[in-house]
Amino acid sequence: MTHFTGSVAKPCDFVLFGTVGDLARRKLIPSLYQLDKAGLLHSGTRIFGVARREMSQEEYQQVIRSSLGEFLKEEVDKDTLTRLLARCTYVAMDFTQPEGYEQFHALRQAQPDNVMVNYFATPPSIYGVICRCLKTAGLIEPATRVVLEKPIGHDLESSRVINDQVAEFFAENQIYRIDHYLGKETVQNLVALRFANSLFASKWDNRTIDHVQITVAEEVGIEGRWDYFDKAGQMRDMIQNHLLQVLSLVAMDPPVNLDADSIRDEKVKVLKSLRPIDSNNVFETAVRGQYSAGFLKGSPVPGYLEEEGANLDSDTETFAALRVDIDNWRWSGVPFYLRTGKRMPYKCSEIVVHFKNPPHNLYRGSYRQLPPNKLTIRLQPHEGVEIQMMNKVPGLDETQRLQTTKLDLSFSDTFKNERVADAYERLLLECMLGNQSLFVRRDEVEQAWKWCDSILAAWAGSHEPPKAYPAGTWGPVASVALITRDGRSWDE
Amino acid sequence: MTHFTGSVAKPCDFVLFGTVGDLARRKLIPSLYQLDKAGLLHSGTRIFGVARREMSQEEYQQVIRSSLGEFLKEEVDKDTLTRLLARCTYVAMDFTQPEGYEQFHALRQAQPDNVMVNYFATPPSIYGVICRCLKTAGLIEPATRVVLEKPIGHDLESSRVINDQVAEFFAENQIYRIDHYLGKETVQNLVALRFANSLFASKWDNRTIDHVQITVAEEVGIEGRWDYFDKAGQMRDMIQNHLLQVLSLVAMDPPVNLDADSIRDEKVKVLKSLRPIDSNNVFETAVRGQYSAGFLKGSPVPGYLEEEGANLDSDTETFAALRVDIDNWRWSGVPFYLRTGKRMPYKCSEIVVHFKNPPHNLYRGSYRQLPPNKLTIRLQPHEGVEIQMMNKVPGLDETQRLQTTKLDLSFSDTFKNERVADAYERLLLECMLGNQSLFVRRDEVEQAWKWCDSILAAWAGSHEPPKAYPAGTWGPVASVALITRDGRSWDE
Repeated sequence: MTHFTGSVAKPCDFVLFGTVGDLARRKLIPSLYQLDKAGLLHSGTRIFGVARREMSQEEYQQVIRSSLGEFLKEEVDKDTLTRLLARCTYVAMDFTQPEGYEQFHALRQAQPDNVMVNYFATPPSIYGVICRCLKTAGLIEPATRVVLEKPIGHDLESSRVINDQVAEFFAENQIYRIDHYLGKETVQNLVALRFANSLFASKWDNRTIDHVQITVAEEVGIEGRWDYFDKAGQMRDMIQNHLLQVLSLVAMDPPVNLDADSIRDEKVKVLKSLRPIDSNNVFETAVRGQYSAGFLKGSPVPGYLEEEGANLDSDTETFAALRVDIDNWRWSGVPFYLRTGKRMPYKCSEIVVHFKNPPHNLYRGSYRQLPPNKLTIRLQPHEGVEIQMMNKVPGLDETQRLQTTKLDLSFSDTFKNERVADAYERLLLECMLGNQSLFVRRDEVEQAWKWCDSILAAWAGSHEPPKAYPAGTWGPVASVALITRDGRSWDE
Repeated sequence: MTHFTGSVAKPCDFVLFGTVGDLARRKLIPSLYQLDKAGLLHSGTRIFGVARREMSQEEYQQVIRSSLGEFLKEEVDKDTLTRLLARCTYVAMDFTQPEGYEQFHALRQAQPDNVMVNYFATPPSIYGVICRCLKTAGLIEPATRVVLEKPIGHDLESSRVINDQVAEFFAENQIYRIDHYLGKETVQNLVALRFANSLFASKWDNRTIDHVQITVAEEVGIEGRWDYFDKAGQMRDMIQNHLLQVLSLVAMDPPVNLDADSIRDEKVKVLKSLRPIDSNNVFETAVRGQYSAGFLKGSPVPGYLEEEGANLDSDTETFAALRVDIDNWRWSGVPFYLRTGKRMPYKCSEIVVHFKNPPHNLYRGSYRQLPPNKLTIRLQPHEGVEIQMMNKVPGLDETQRLQTTKLDLSFSDTFKNERVADAYERLLLECMLGNQSLFVRRDEVEQAWKWCDSILAAWAGSHEPPKAYPAGTWGPVASVALITRDGRSWDE
């Protein structure tokens, strides 16, 4: 990292509740390793892994080693591993009992100035209990932070309960709600693209943009978590958080500055401007689907109701497509089409901004309608930015013959020598730095729930089951109808 | 050319006056070969090479073979060569004497419906004589065309004389004035870029563009033509035609349609809107230079006045830099900076459109001023289009750290399987097709002369010699001052 100019966080005590869970092993431990490797962890920063099971320090070190062996996408650097292990201490305790927390007093005494960053990689149902125990043990200071994983509730009401429980002990400026989409390189780049480039800055509204598409397509199905997923569905699992967060960054007005709250002030304004979808308009604006048996890359895969543990009565959606209208000055008349599903033909997350056509078609001899300029922001795979433009076909063809060409900025190609950081690395770094920009504020969570609850209620009240779509396709035909009705089509 | 969809011209009799001259051998014969290879010459199209010297058909075929051997950038295809040679007939005659033209009657009798396209690769001083001889010989029909090479005169007055001489025998719609820059791939693409892309179409004016730079830098010096060049200078040789043509395509208003005269109507409007440069403002807006001895790529090269045949008193400019203001609704306040010279550090022709910055700098913590978005259209070498944008630096650097990145569309990379056609191929094809779009209309030529004459007169009247610049540099320091005075700088 010769060119590194980032900030190193002040010394922290990073307490990882749920340190042997899936998220910790898959994402958090590898991310801590990467931060350490990049020199971004202060030499005084310590990591406390917390879980219920009794385990020796050696056994815990083995957990870390196996996590890195399994999930790090590169060879483990010995020096970094040694340094990381030296920071790590395992603490066995029952999170729900105050007694265990007493251990921290002794542990923290050695470095009392370390900021305590508590990362809750646990079920949200015990967030409140952990907070209360931290309080009881006298571990909450004004600088103490708490990092909350999703889901923050199941609907507006339950999210309020969780947020209230945490708010009893922590102020909003101490609370870091994770939406890992905000840590993705290209999502962070969205702000730069929009506000540091006059090519886009001055044309980001209903005079110049025709519509926007946001697609998050998953190839995976349920992966053995049928019961967990069935209680949520794609709306709660993907749209309420990731897609609405991305939408609000695309749509927000220019913030006063780039401070966390200035940005979040603008994002929540977008969420407040979303036109409600309810029983009056749900049929025209929202499509839910559920995958049936089909083929993925040539192999047969079961339907949602044939997965292990399935309840045949389930009408949980594994696919949702929405036409979202933002009722504000900037976006009036510009629909945002959202689409997300499981068992799509391939994994792909992207934002596509479709610009309006030039006011007059000089090429009407060759094109009844000119293909529009498009700005594509690829979140995965192959994070990058792409502009679709029209150029003359080179060579001796007719001078008026055009073709669409792509100006491409692939992050992995362009920045060959720079590893594209995982979203969690960025987010862990930011919560240690104390910068809330990339975390979700309470009013955002609640506004998003309020909007999604209305759709879910309309679906529930419609007595129409989700529309079936064969695994390995782009969702039910009703999703195509949703957009073609407006004279547009999904990007493929 | 599997994908070819261009038009094949109707049968022509292409008469090449000056067929053993430099232009014919270097450009025209290789271009005719390429058109034939691409299947763009009608099977009935014939080529008549005309020159004074006595030569057998075999000797003429040898001229064609040697021209291709020397100037074709690829191996000669035998079948194409056989086809081309079969079309070609050599005609020995004195252009200035009517007698020689009688031969054409016999030649044309075999295919009397062929359109006669007369290409004057001769000194302009005899254009009038050739026209008169064609007329006398009864060879001018309404469909007959005449293609004129530059220079059309030396100033407004002499260009009028030449244009009048030709106009006595040909109507404007029969006259094809060559400016080979108009045949360049990227120059033709300018129209598509501007009018088929809403990203640019709707922001091509003084609200969104800060300024435009047009650079045509030559590496070569005088190349043994001192006397010829010294009578012209860079203003007449490059700016009056190539740079003003490019400028007018960049600056023109949207044409009614893409017909030749609709486009040329708009181009001439731009030329009429150029703010005059005269003795009142020449010092602030125009810099002329003359190269002195220097180094080019490490080797010493002589100064302009040390070249073979030089007249030590010459104050002919080998470099010119201008600030051009277009006094119309669209461009008020947006300067176009033009720069062209010989013995520059390397060969490079490009148009760079500098967009204005976003209205407010959100990144002022990191950048006092954001680098602007730029659209670069490279004419040579490496024809292509490039957009300079700002992106977040990927990785774990501070989220607000930006870098300029380039979205690049290099024609030769992107269209690997398509040869980039030489400008003359396009122009020869178009004059056979009878499409005047890429040729310069009389009012354009005269308007451009009028504007340039004023600058030349102001320079002549200033009694200040051109400023010296060492060969291998970007011109005199006054050229830098010209643009830095406005708070801007030349693209390097």
